[in-house]
Amino acid sequence: MKIGIVGQGKMGYNLSLNAMDHGHQVVAFDVDAAAIKRIEEAGATGADSLEKLVSLMEAPRVIWMMVPAGELTENVIETLRPLLSAGDTLIDGGNSNYKDSVRRSESLLPQGIHYLDVGTSGGMEGARNGACAMIGGDAAAFKAVEPLFADICVENGYLYAGASGSGHFLKMVHNGIEYGMMQSIAEGFEVLERSGFDFNFEQVAKVWNNGSVIRSWLMELTENAFSKDAKLDGLKGVMQSSGEGKWTLETALDLQTATPVIAMSLMMRYRSLQDDTFSGKVVAALRNEFGGHAVVNS
Amino acid sequence: MKIGIVGQGKMGYNLSLNAMDHGHQVVAFDVDAAAIKRIEEAGATGADSLEKLVSLMEAPRVIWMMVPAGELTENVIETLRPLLSAGDTLIDGGNSNYKDSVRRSESLLPQGIHYLDVGTSGGMEGARNGACAMIGGDAAAFKAVEPLFADICVENGYLYAGASGSGHFLKMVHNGIEYGMMQSIAEGFEVLERSGFDFNFEQVAKVWNNGSVIRSWLMELTENAFSKDAKLDGLKGVMQSSGEGKWTLETALDLQTATPVIAMSLMMRYRSLQDDTFSGKVVAALRNEFGGHAVVNS
Repeated sequence: MKIGIVGQGKMGYNLSLNAMDHGHQVVAFDVDAAAIKRIEEAGATGADSLEKLVSLMEAPRVIWMMVPAGELTENVIETLRPLLSAGDTLIDGGNSNYKDSVRRSESLLPQGIHYLDVGTSGGMEGARNGACAMIGGDAAAFKAVEPLFADICVENGYLYAGASGSGHFLKMVHNGIEYGMMQSIAEGFEVLERSGFDFNFEQVAKVWNNGSVIRSWLMELTENAFSKDAKLDGLKGVMQSSGEGKWTLETALDLQTATPVIAMSLMMRYRSLQDDTFSGKVVAALRNEFGGHAVVNS
Repeated sequence: MKIGIVGQGKMGYNLSLNAMDHGHQVVAFDVDAAAIKRIEEAGATGADSLEKLVSLMEAPRVIWMMVPAGELTENVIETLRPLLSAGDTLIDGGNSNYKDSVRRSESLLPQGIHYLDVGTSGGMEGARNGACAMIGGDAAAFKAVEPLFADICVENGYLYAGASGSGHFLKMVHNGIEYGMMQSIAEGFEVLERSGFDFNFEQVAKVWNNGSVIRSWLMELTENAFSKDAKLDGLKGVMQSSGEGKWTLETALDLQTATPVIAMSLMMRYRSLQDDTFSGKVVAALRNEFGGHAVVNS
């Protein structure tokens, strides 16, 4: 199959290599000329504009976008819109909000352009050697490109989930679950760290990966991390987030669904970004007001 | 190695079979004569009392207790205490509180009896075919029985963790992490269930087990559960607990460690045991008091 891949960053580059490994022809675009050159050297056909990319393909085209969610994805779609033909399929493999995907799918439908929202998991390693893909959109459009998913994903690693938005919805919730699992693992290790026992955290993670109930890929990554830095002395506990945990919580709120663990995981991330908190100042001030309890002066 | 195994319930029976598979001789006791008969038929030597079990073994003895934590374990230890000799090793493979294990180890030390606290994970399947064991206690006593652990555990599935109590401490925290991971997975599926999309939960769990970041044994069990009952219509969301999540939280509080996800996981279990809550009545009454908001009458 000939596929256009828009975005040759960490994910798009590895996905392109993965697709070419399986005999697919890749027409590649990136805003960075060096990134185009790199993938050309690996066997792809480079395109220095979206117009060029589209012109290098024959309808019905399959174009996979692997660009950051939000404005960048929106701009690519709006640039491609007048260039595409009825029957073409546009795939959003990024971490778009599922509501955007529903809207985009609906807006492209009158032109006969199919839109598949594809949540991908497994990181760079997965993009390169076998990803996990959750796919929403028109069933017939999915069927037409299913062989591509079968090639680039691990065995049993793709799911056609249904209506437009369902792919990105699944990926969003996947990430929400990931937040909670990570925070739970992390809290457990903090209890170990403060326990007074002399645990070797790498060995603990390792034994938990062999036969225990909590064995998991995340625990394997935990083992890896401790193997490189036994007490993680080389980094600070600052936990960034890229939006999907927040979306999961916002969605849970809209659905009036109690998700306290996912909520706390997100809030502990926000807390980790602060050296001190205003809420802490308020509580300290109140304890001082009613009980004369000492405060720590700044 | 000849080992005594006290308790021939779900875990002790499977552990006995596992040990015999690897050429160990098992002397087995249970309070239930039928359980003794069952393991005798599988090749063990039955003992109808702890006195008999001890008399059937030669010092230095290795006796593994696989009985419920708390009073039952305490009773077994106090019954065995006068029967054992210096150099014998007593293993507690149950889910004892690590503080009890420290106390018991110290109380047996003057008699020269070694006490190993062993947290085991992996369920019945693990006990039968390869467990995960976290071991605390005297290092030399551990070394002497290490071949047994090597045989009954999966590869890399046992860890000598250090001082008395460290094995059960690790198992406690393992279970605390397990609570958080399970609650996070569960909350994610609740969001899916209320989303309006028509997800097939078995298929979702399956795709998440193949290449995704949250692939894990717990997600495999989730897939199994949905394969048997697509929407879990056959059961209620009542979440029991057996103590170790509570101990993890109590320990975290003693250590002044923030573990909100483990705490919320435990509290959601308690909430699940209630059809209605008194706190809910209080909030409803207050809303009515200050705003005249309608209450639902009982």
